[in-house]
Amino acid sequence: MALKDILAEKAPKRPGVAAAVVSLREAFGERLVTGEDVRRAHAHTTTYIPNQAPDAVVFAESEAEVQKTVRICAETETPIVAFGTGSSLEGHLNAPQGGISLDLSRMDKVLAVHPEDLDCTVEAGVTRESLNAHLRDTGLFFPIDPGANASLGGMAATRASGTNAVRYGTMRDNVIALTAVMADGRIIRTARRAKKTSAGYDLTRLLVGSEGTLGIITRLDLRLYGIPERILSGVCPFPSVRDAVDTVIQTVQTGIPVARIELLDAQSMQAANAYAKLDLKPQPSLFVEFHGSPASVAEQAETFGMIAAEHGGGALEASSRPEERSRLWKARHDMYWASIALRPGCRGIATDVCVPVSRLADCIDETQADLRDNRLVGPIIGHVGDGNFHVTLLLDMEDSREIDAAEAFMARLAARAVAMDGTCTGEHGVGQGKRGYLEAELGDTVDFMRMIKRALDPKGIMNPGKIFML
Amino acid sequence: MALKDILAEKAPKRPGVAAAVVSLREAFGERLVTGEDVRRAHAHTTTYIPNQAPDAVVFAESEAEVQKTVRICAETETPIVAFGTGSSLEGHLNAPQGGISLDLSRMDKVLAVHPEDLDCTVEAGVTRESLNAHLRDTGLFFPIDPGANASLGGMAATRASGTNAVRYGTMRDNVIALTAVMADGRIIRTARRAKKTSAGYDLTRLLVGSEGTLGIITRLDLRLYGIPERILSGVCPFPSVRDAVDTVIQTVQTGIPVARIELLDAQSMQAANAYAKLDLKPQPSLFVEFHGSPASVAEQAETFGMIAAEHGGGALEASSRPEERSRLWKARHDMYWASIALRPGCRGIATDVCVPVSRLADCIDETQADLRDNRLVGPIIGHVGDGNFHVTLLLDMEDSREIDAAEAFMARLAARAVAMDGTCTGEHGVGQGKRGYLEAELGDTVDFMRMIKRALDPKGIMNPGKIFML
Repeated sequence: MALKDILAEKAPKRPGVAAAVVSLREAFGERLVTGEDVRRAHAHTTTYIPNQAPDAVVFAESEAEVQKTVRICAETETPIVAFGTGSSLEGHLNAPQGGISLDLSRMDKVLAVHPEDLDCTVEAGVTRESLNAHLRDTGLFFPIDPGANASLGGMAATRASGTNAVRYGTMRDNVIALTAVMADGRIIRTARRAKKTSAGYDLTRLLVGSEGTLGIITRLDLRLYGIPERILSGVCPFPSVRDAVDTVIQTVQTGIPVARIELLDAQSMQAANAYAKLDLKPQPSLFVEFHGSPASVAEQAETFGMIAAEHGGGALEASSRPEERSRLWKARHDMYWASIALRPGCRGIATDVCVPVSRLADCIDETQADLRDNRLVGPIIGHVGDGNFHVTLLLDMEDSREIDAAEAFMARLAARAVAMDGTCTGEHGVGQGKRGYLEAELGDTVDFMRMIKRALDPKGIMNPGKIFML
Repeated sequence: MALKDILAEKAPKRPGVAAAVVSLREAFGERLVTGEDVRRAHAHTTTYIPNQAPDAVVFAESEAEVQKTVRICAETETPIVAFGTGSSLEGHLNAPQGGISLDLSRMDKVLAVHPEDLDCTVEAGVTRESLNAHLRDTGLFFPIDPGANASLGGMAATRASGTNAVRYGTMRDNVIALTAVMADGRIIRTARRAKKTSAGYDLTRLLVGSEGTLGIITRLDLRLYGIPERILSGVCPFPSVRDAVDTVIQTVQTGIPVARIELLDAQSMQAANAYAKLDLKPQPSLFVEFHGSPASVAEQAETFGMIAAEHGGGALEASSRPEERSRLWKARHDMYWASIALRPGCRGIATDVCVPVSRLADCIDETQADLRDNRLVGPIIGHVGDGNFHVTLLLDMEDSREIDAAEAFMARLAARAVAMDGTCTGEHGVGQGKRGYLEAELGDTVDFMRMIKRALDPKGIMNPGKIFML
């Protein structure tokens, strides 16, 4: 959605907000903050989508406090925007109609770990890194890794995934149950802790990805996994993106349970070399990781190596030594910083699409041509096992030609993905930025989303203006 | 829910049904059937829940015909019940308020197979066996196996799973997108064919498990898997259910990607021996299956064998020869018939619950004691990797004491599972039979399901009386 459309949107402030702030101050004292810096830091900060700050920020410390906040907001018809760590990319945290940002970061307790059941229960403000730190001595880990050290509540709300979704799935697959405060102030738990259930509508999956528009997630029951006995990571260069993608397709078809398989295009490899002082071949490359027993990992790597060789891939340089693995994945995870270092002074704006993997090489080829044709710089990295890739546009924010060109490019990228039976967002969510693309992608289906929204939040107080306009 | 409560339910027939039948006869000619045998065969037939036949059956042959049927039913406020193969167990197919059974079994075309994407597109009436027959030459398969040769539309509608959900997940995990005719006659596709998406509410997962109460599924995009290079199946006896369950817990914790791990209690083993003329030890046993490369399968079996031995398990008798594997799994799949052969003249009534696996041994022990205390015969088999088990009650349908005892037993079983943070149904669904248990399990959460139902089906024509009463 174009910047100017977001700015031009008619979004009158709700009249009840002032009354809500008075009630909330009574209830929360100094934990109700109205200073501009804090308010702005709780709205959108990560891309060029404008910052639309809330009227106040509440720092909640318990489910009961979340409920109290929602009740006050419900009475006054005041918008309420849940906040975890602020790492979302599509304007989810903005308050275009004013209202309250509900900061859940202090709800940071791991409430229970059940090693026999391979699950745990956490408050919504726990981040994925703090959960994994907590789990360190149990031999278990939580796999979903969207890059940022996001809160688990936020990751559920945006249906986050990341580098190892190809093996472990996304938040959709790893949330067993959610506890949420709904728009009328009632607290529900969507399911029990059983690994599977056929007991009624899947409200867990309805809340996962609902971007705070149906309820405030306060607690999550999450799946855990045993830390693999052996982890082997490596990098393998290819003559072209298509060769790399064909290798991915055959790897997955062969049933190799690859844990990560990430594509970096030639430009990304150059950026990684420069930034991380590496000496990798500046060709399209796959970063891979295998999890399992020593024998299984060796076999996976060997089979992968044979497949790669059939597609012109170079030798797989792989290591199971933690420091080597960390160096490799740090280079991958630092790609945002490496990319913007390609063009000092620029801003890096990340977008994402996802297509059936059979169309991935076409989609990336056409996208690279599009970038060239429009004089845009945008290294491409991808969670290619899932058909998902990112373009990080490196923009001079002072140059309106570039901004316009970037917006037009992103619209074409979304349309290209949808034309290939893909989606305008594989993992970033819709927020404000992709509402227009969502309509183009799903048509009438979005109407049924609106019907659910109106039924569950008739006053429209839950993160209004996100996913779709009512 | 007690039989008498279902029978006593006030469910007045809808006045518009007669007009709907007239319009449908005009539209469908001989494919609108009102004969009693056909009508009764399209309502509930598999347990002791009473048969509540629809007023007519429409045999649809296309999505457009489903849409036409729904539009006629919407105009006349006539209930509409989708029918696949009739294998559901909780009364999903009954028409307590009268109406139309919409038979989708003629919509049996596999529309597309995309080997590179590991997915396919099928009409809702395709059964899982016919899909796998269609796939035979592709090296791919669709794993979900609930036992019956159910239709894929029906399996999605009840969120079916079965023996290999521990490895491949349930219908929830294996439906990429659905096409459905909604209550207002509009056709929506819930998502694109990309493997993952963050594009708005997850209407795919909302329809999966909605039991025909929100829309009629007409088409499915499904995930496929490569047929494993090696499949090894075996059976291993244990001194007790608890030893077997502890073995399962450790197997899953260790990260062995077991494809199937099924528990049969001692009574089930006796039944299997008698029925299938086998000579297995009449002790609680695990039937297991490993999928992978030859080396990986050998390693999985070896590690499993060591874990089993630590828990008093006997030697794992395993084979990768197809005829041996078939013999073993046929014995498992024939357990329904083997069980009822234990008590000639009886009816077998299957129920299911699912608990966190740490509570599974407790739940089964208490359930076996409950059966003994109430003079009920009910062999137990379980998809124990998921904490899911079935009791097949062997009932003399002429003996009202037994029926009453069975109903009371099933209510206690559901309550026991819920008290252990489990669910009243892991895979059979709610239908009519478990509505009361659902309320006990999820409380207020069911209200939010009702709100969604009312929003999407304001006239209440989609399979009324299932999952919950409005």
